[in-house]
Amino acid sequence: MSGRDGRVSVEDYRKRLLDGLMPLPPVQLPLARCLGLVTAEAVTARVAVPPFTNSAMDGFAVRHADVATADPASPIALGVVGDLAAGSRDDPRVGDGQAVRIMTGAPLPAGADAVVPVELTDQPLGRAGLPEIVRITGSVARAANIRLAGEDVAMGAPILPAGVRVDATAIAAAASAGHGTLLVHPAPRVAVIATGAELVEPGQPLDTGQIPDSNGPMLAGLVAEFGAVPMSLARCPDDPAALDAAVTAALDLADVVITSGGVSVGVRDVVKNSAVADALEFARVSMRPGKPQGHGRLTASDGRVVSLLALPGNPVSVFVSWFVFVVPVLAALAGLDPASVPSTGLAPVGTGWRSPRGFVQFMPVMRLPDGTVAPSHRLGAGSHLIASLHRAGALAVVPADVTEVTSGGVVDLIETRRGS
Amino acid sequence: MSGRDGRVSVEDYRKRLLDGLMPLPPVQLPLARCLGLVTAEAVTARVAVPPFTNSAMDGFAVRHADVATADPASPIALGVVGDLAAGSRDDPRVGDGQAVRIMTGAPLPAGADAVVPVELTDQPLGRAGLPEIVRITGSVARAANIRLAGEDVAMGAPILPAGVRVDATAIAAAASAGHGTLLVHPAPRVAVIATGAELVEPGQPLDTGQIPDSNGPMLAGLVAEFGAVPMSLARCPDDPAALDAAVTAALDLADVVITSGGVSVGVRDVVKNSAVADALEFARVSMRPGKPQGHGRLTASDGRVVSLLALPGNPVSVFVSWFVFVVPVLAALAGLDPASVPSTGLAPVGTGWRSPRGFVQFMPVMRLPDGTVAPSHRLGAGSHLIASLHRAGALAVVPADVTEVTSGGVVDLIETRRGS
Repeated sequence: MSGRDGRVSVEDYRKRLLDGLMPLPPVQLPLARCLGLVTAEAVTARVAVPPFTNSAMDGFAVRHADVATADPASPIALGVVGDLAAGSRDDPRVGDGQAVRIMTGAPLPAGADAVVPVELTDQPLGRAGLPEIVRITGSVARAANIRLAGEDVAMGAPILPAGVRVDATAIAAAASAGHGTLLVHPAPRVAVIATGAELVEPGQPLDTGQIPDSNGPMLAGLVAEFGAVPMSLARCPDDPAALDAAVTAALDLADVVITSGGVSVGVRDVVKNSAVADALEFARVSMRPGKPQGHGRLTASDGRVVSLLALPGNPVSVFVSWFVFVVPVLAALAGLDPASVPSTGLAPVGTGWRSPRGFVQFMPVMRLPDGTVAPSHRLGAGSHLIASLHRAGALAVVPADVTEVTSGGVVDLIETRRGS
Repeated sequence: MSGRDGRVSVEDYRKRLLDGLMPLPPVQLPLARCLGLVTAEAVTARVAVPPFTNSAMDGFAVRHADVATADPASPIALGVVGDLAAGSRDDPRVGDGQAVRIMTGAPLPAGADAVVPVELTDQPLGRAGLPEIVRITGSVARAANIRLAGEDVAMGAPILPAGVRVDATAIAAAASAGHGTLLVHPAPRVAVIATGAELVEPGQPLDTGQIPDSNGPMLAGLVAEFGAVPMSLARCPDDPAALDAAVTAALDLADVVITSGGVSVGVRDVVKNSAVADALEFARVSMRPGKPQGHGRLTASDGRVVSLLALPGNPVSVFVSWFVFVVPVLAALAGLDPASVPSTGLAPVGTGWRSPRGFVQFMPVMRLPDGTVAPSHRLGAGSHLIASLHRAGALAVVPADVTEVTSGGVVDLIETRRGS
């Protein structure tokens, strides 16, 4: 329960967390419920898009040869033999010297090979009766204003790969290609337990030694920003029995349980002193902040295996741990490639800083107007600087063998806005 | 209701939409309900962060002068006169030759001016009884491992400006600085009405001339991705009375009503032919796709003024209109600066394309592995290319006077992932 935990690199600890972790079993859901979830199989077109050759304009379907010489000075008169609205089931045929009035999206009638927009005719724009004769006042090319069946995607063509988040355009793609449902992985459900006798509900008066709980609300927000489901948010004093009870309750609600605090070398560190600790591995990860970590796989009362991530208690440590460890775990459960998140990048360094030898440093940084980055607080990477963390839009990642980040250099970034 | 609508530039049309539009009246909400909403006032610290000077380590609070010469060969013994857990209300005092055991986050006791971590003492890590004597085996600097009250932010210092989205770190900042609630603008409520006799529910069999409705589900998804609230999704045939009824119902649910289709020059264009049209202004905006547009302010039965945006019916036109017109309107109602969204950028052009003179072109583009962009479909900006739109991550914006976008040049982008 106590003593010196194993020292491990960031990469190796992340590997342990992800080892053997499988995406949650996929479910077939209506499109409207798929937003933000991840495809569990490649999606192909069940119908061609467009499903039939149709008009791209409001106008008249014609035989191109009939109108090739039309111009305002010598309009060409065609007999109107039909009227095709979008959605119409009529099936008129365009013969020599004939036209069918047609609206955008209506099926091109047999015999026609071009659509003349209403602006190139003697007909009014908007609502109007069907004329017996239309005068074409301008020519168009053969096949003009016609959308061919399948020219967007052919039947059977790939629409979406497996393992991508369903966004609004993915829903539109699936809908247009004939799908009413998709096979997706459900969003991971997450229970949060913030530990610490010093924590009180935000906004409540503080007694001596007390602070507002910021870890719990921040974690619940990060869960939602990732697209996972915050199931519960518990606050637990430094009482091992209370922690065990909170974890037991959380296991039945969630796919992942996250605790904050109580994993370091303090005499009352509650997660370490709980019965739950017997099922956890604790480690000192070579990172700052965020060094003390714990994790394990527990079993809910219905037999499901639930990942528990025991994060340190300092709020900036929680924030760093979220991106470095929790996001990859949630990604793996959600069906994403855990290596694809969070988003990373590079930035030039505006104001440099120091970094401890032997530890990967995660420094909250803000972007300056000139595009460079600088620490977002004058005190740097202090793990308690939570009220100013909002100013940072990224975490700079400084390798363990670098002790000085110099102005004018370049640094790796983890993007931290929007939680993924 | 028909005929030639006024021609207007993209900028001028957007100005008309935004003219006089005010943020929704702010409400005071618990932090947990503020995620994704926009602050309606600047937030300052009600308490300093940290609220009291406290220990950054698990260890012993000491007088620095007592331990300045400590090393493993000549440890210094101090009498332990107290035990401070985080959250403790005890108030021990450290005198000459004395120490108080202290845990991370516990208030620094009077008399102490440094904290020696447990690793630099003869005490075990983790759970242990309180010793009578502690032997200090290494020195630390004066003020080492101490977090000063207010060193993150002072009481009264600014925490969050007005007009920013509340994310997880903003919630943590507000919580840590003493706030349990925030004054925020509510999320705009949006009703969507997809019009068109040809539309059927996604996944249902298609009869002659029918297509699946992709506009409605796409718009509902974009509403949610923006952080607005999708209230209803109606599908309406080309029947003006049905459209009027759908709009009347939507007004009572929503702050914004969005229709797709029925605003162009077709004889059955339902929005134009409805009674609602009397309250709308229709325009031909100098853009491709997305030219036919309509908008107006209507009054709900409870007297609220509701913005109606009547978008064209082609699905890529809907998508473009979303970012160019709907997002700024939602931003203004949500309390954001409408000029701040959607995100924009610049990219080098990999594969060039043509653009119509006199119209701003919005071309769906994808990023190539070399960082350049190219049209995401071989048919370019066709307004019906909905099943492939998912491949695009941005819209390239080509000015009206440019007719050719050339490989090797640079183009403006609107970022379209995640709806804002």
